[in-house]
Amino acid sequence: MRGTVPPNSGRQDVVVLSNPGADRVRAVRRLTGRSARRREGRFLAEGPQAVTEAVAAHVADMPTGRPGILVALYATPDAAERHAGLLAQAADVGFPARIATPEVLAAMGDTVTPQGLLAVCRLVDVPLARVLDGSPRLVAVLAHVRDPGNAGAVLRAADAAGADGVVVTDASVDVHNPKSVRASAGSLFHVPVSTSVPFADAVNGLRDARLAVLAADVAGPVDLDDLQNDAERGAGPLSGPVAWLFGNEAWGLPDDVLAAADVVVRVPVYGRAESLNLATAAAVCLYASARAHHRPPPR
Amino acid sequence: MRGTVPPNSGRQDVVVLSNPGADRVRAVRRLTGRSARRREGRFLAEGPQAVTEAVAAHVADMPTGRPGILVALYATPDAAERHAGLLAQAADVGFPARIATPEVLAAMGDTVTPQGLLAVCRLVDVPLARVLDGSPRLVAVLAHVRDPGNAGAVLRAADAAGADGVVVTDASVDVHNPKSVRASAGSLFHVPVSTSVPFADAVNGLRDARLAVLAADVAGPVDLDDLQNDAERGAGPLSGPVAWLFGNEAWGLPDDVLAAADVVVRVPVYGRAESLNLATAAAVCLYASARAHHRPPPR
Repeated sequence: MRGTVPPNSGRQDVVVLSNPGADRVRAVRRLTGRSARRREGRFLAEGPQAVTEAVAAHVADMPTGRPGILVALYATPDAAERHAGLLAQAADVGFPARIATPEVLAAMGDTVTPQGLLAVCRLVDVPLARVLDGSPRLVAVLAHVRDPGNAGAVLRAADAAGADGVVVTDASVDVHNPKSVRASAGSLFHVPVSTSVPFADAVNGLRDARLAVLAADVAGPVDLDDLQNDAERGAGPLSGPVAWLFGNEAWGLPDDVLAAADVVVRVPVYGRAESLNLATAAAVCLYASARAHHRPPPR
Repeated sequence: MRGTVPPNSGRQDVVVLSNPGADRVRAVRRLTGRSARRREGRFLAEGPQAVTEAVAAHVADMPTGRPGILVALYATPDAAERHAGLLAQAADVGFPARIATPEVLAAMGDTVTPQGLLAVCRLVDVPLARVLDGSPRLVAVLAHVRDPGNAGAVLRAADAAGADGVVVTDASVDVHNPKSVRASAGSLFHVPVSTSVPFADAVNGLRDARLAVLAADVAGPVDLDDLQNDAERGAGPLSGPVAWLFGNEAWGLPDDVLAAADVVVRVPVYGRAESLNLATAAAVCLYASARAHHRPPPR
């Protein structure tokens, strides 16, 4: 029996999923692991922020005729009341929430406090061509990012800086990891993301789309400040379309990635820190690009 | 019996601390909690990076006549071998490492994998006057930062951007928290940090030291890009000495903090993200200041 309920229906006879050991619950929980996500093409959006973004992305995608992102939606009775408007919106597009106990929600997901809402979603992954179509001006490439929290934080920074898309190479973590989804704070649902892309394909595609390929590396020979000085005169790579390659902060970018870049750029360190962490370095680079793209024309 | 050993002594009869339940071990572990840190004026530096910075800070502080930062140093036999040079340096200044089993090290600290090194240190806290002395040009203020990881990440960004000091108000998390120490990646030992400062004292002190007080807030009326445009002409607050107030990203800064600022600044969001996370927003603001301070004079 399924615990579905039209929100605001006022019915008292809703079946509530209450067995944390049920097959259905364990099937959802398996999506916290990469192999199950790949095999089933599904991932988890946990908590009100992620679920709100997932519902919005599903609604926005409907006119395209593509299958929407939502697959199933679960809520505790409390959360169903608290987020009645959101659940009504989901029910309108064919996804009434199934009501479950807090214990079932906790058993389904990865979050310690999922705040009573969880959605099973189709992977957000799009073909690389969709990131490269439409003359992108700013693309972030996760080339060797291993920490899922960092990956999500870079996605969030890319979204904030107005990136047209994000490319995740096959040497990086899966951005559908629950920790990445959480750290992206909804941005995973905003920006076109192409995942599991072989690095050479990414770089060739970006070049063909006429983006300059910049690699961010702590030991890069070119100072970001110098590129910004150039951009103030309307010159240099920051003034045009740019793809930024970001790697694992602990060891920087490997030689083949550095060799593929047009320019290897370091964020200047004015104090005594050895480096910035990956997400903050990425934010500084992406915002330098955004500023160059949005600046008033040089006088 | 104490498990101390002169590094490189080659002696085989070293006493190894091996009881994770010993009083000494539990006394060290208590320093993972704020009240014990306050009461005893001590905190933990865990892992090779933090311990290396602690030893360097201790050595650098010796000419001042102040009591150095080191109180005790513990290492596993493996780590003592791996970091023989570091331990020799510590022994030279009076702190031979006490050798302990990996289980004892794990029981002492907060880190899952402390990598075999742990130092007990005096709090790095300095009086506010020491942050304000010497005409500082860039100061970061943690006004309502509650997450220890965020606090450490802001410290690291402030250090990288060349901040002269960091002020932590009494409404913020303790930056001696093990998670803050870890996220600061050594920067806690680089930059003068004044903690538990009442907010009004901080703002008055910063004003008296002739710093402009800028608050970073998602809803700020002034766009950081406009301030940077001004700075390119050598004008506006970014061209002079600046203190940045950072708060808790979830709810921004409270009204009294916003009212105390000269300018309330938002980092522009070009895409669909609601905001940046605190540490990345702080990095973008601090780097905008650093760039304004280091830029070539306007033509």
